[in-house]
Amino acid sequence: MRTLYHWMLDPYSRSVRIALAEKKIEFSLKEASPFEDQSEAQKLNPIGGAPVLVDMTGAGRVVISEPRAILEYLDEVYPGYPLLPKAPVDRAEARWVMGWLERGFEADVNETILKERIMMRYLRAGRPNTEALRLGAKALEGYLKHLEALTAVRPYLAGEDFTLADISVAAHLSCLDYFGDVVWSRFEHTSDWYLRMKSRASFREILKDSLEGVLPAPHYAELDF
Amino acid sequence: MRTLYHWMLDPYSRSVRIALAEKKIEFSLKEASPFEDQSEAQKLNPIGGAPVLVDMTGAGRVVISEPRAILEYLDEVYPGYPLLPKAPVDRAEARWVMGWLERGFEADVNETILKERIMMRYLRAGRPNTEALRLGAKALEGYLKHLEALTAVRPYLAGEDFTLADISVAAHLSCLDYFGDVVWSRFEHTSDWYLRMKSRASFREILKDSLEGVLPAPHYAELDF
Repeated sequence: MRTLYHWMLDPYSRSVRIALAEKKIEFSLKEASPFEDQSEAQKLNPIGGAPVLVDMTGAGRVVISEPRAILEYLDEVYPGYPLLPKAPVDRAEARWVMGWLERGFEADVNETILKERIMMRYLRAGRPNTEALRLGAKALEGYLKHLEALTAVRPYLAGEDFTLADISVAAHLSCLDYFGDVVWSRFEHTSDWYLRMKSRASFREILKDSLEGVLPAPHYAELDF
Repeated sequence: MRTLYHWMLDPYSRSVRIALAEKKIEFSLKEASPFEDQSEAQKLNPIGGAPVLVDMTGAGRVVISEPRAILEYLDEVYPGYPLLPKAPVDRAEARWVMGWLERGFEADVNETILKERIMMRYLRAGRPNTEALRLGAKALEGYLKHLEALTAVRPYLAGEDFTLADISVAAHLSCLDYFGDVVWSRFEHTSDWYLRMKSRASFREILKDSLEGVLPAPHYAELDF
């Protein structure tokens, strides 16, 4: 059976889960905690851990690691329900969005807000780094402004089609939203877009996850907020 | 004319230059310093700046930003001299290498050693952060060990073919090597592989660059070290 090693609040694991569901590919999940040094996912992908996809192909079992490598692989091997546009320029646009998540958002927001929330509320370790939270919130606001500019003029982040860009950004925001860290009220078009993302069957599934001992923000899984 | 906005010691700009040269695509270069807020590249790609490729297509001028988006675009639009393998599993392997550069090496090595060197030796700003240099050197050693494991069993980083993985890693190492920060002597197979990279015509070109006022390490552009 096809298996995805994932962790619930890892935005990249969420992206892959959504992509698999969008493509109607069957898979089973195995939890791979980032706080466990010798998890199976760590063994399969020593640099990075989850997400790791173990796929079954005609040629046997293959191990695919690294989020964007997995997402591109899925779109190449399972061409039904494509998640990248056809034209190279439009594909570049979708990949540009994934690029700024990994090269900017990751350090500016995940490593500040998300990391702090997970440390504080889930692991209950250390004291909150309020400076990191403040810098993260400021950076997140900047990214939301950019998203607002995109969603104001396009139905989807990379243009006319639903793509890996929408999946990746929505997966990232959903992790922050679990802790109530996204101030939606000032970003009307982004909110509308995110509501459409949450309404997709592929997304409903991940919104059912809950962290032991940490309730999500009240609006987190709601379709009206 | 096709134009690439780049900065000399930006590993991602170097990757794109090498890929363009490997594909024998003509282009002109425009310098886009990361220390200039309102560079043309910043205007074209507000999140991130260089590298930015302005390409001329049948449909007109297009702007492609974000390193991996540019590299994938080039391989899709200019299929001559392919830089990704044919089989999806092998393509995933090449993308896995690019993934660990962006998600690991970037924060662990570029943001420590490379940043400090550029600050100290090029911008002559601030005091050297010796703790960052120490942590960076330790992380770099870990990455070199991984590269050594790969190059011991394969001619190229992603397998049998020269790919974007080789281009990207060699571009990253070349920036550190400019300052003499790569201890090659302990990594025999990686040294051999890097020597082969340096010998390629596409690579010789970037090794001619020199930063004003900062001489490269003596072995930097040599093919025998």
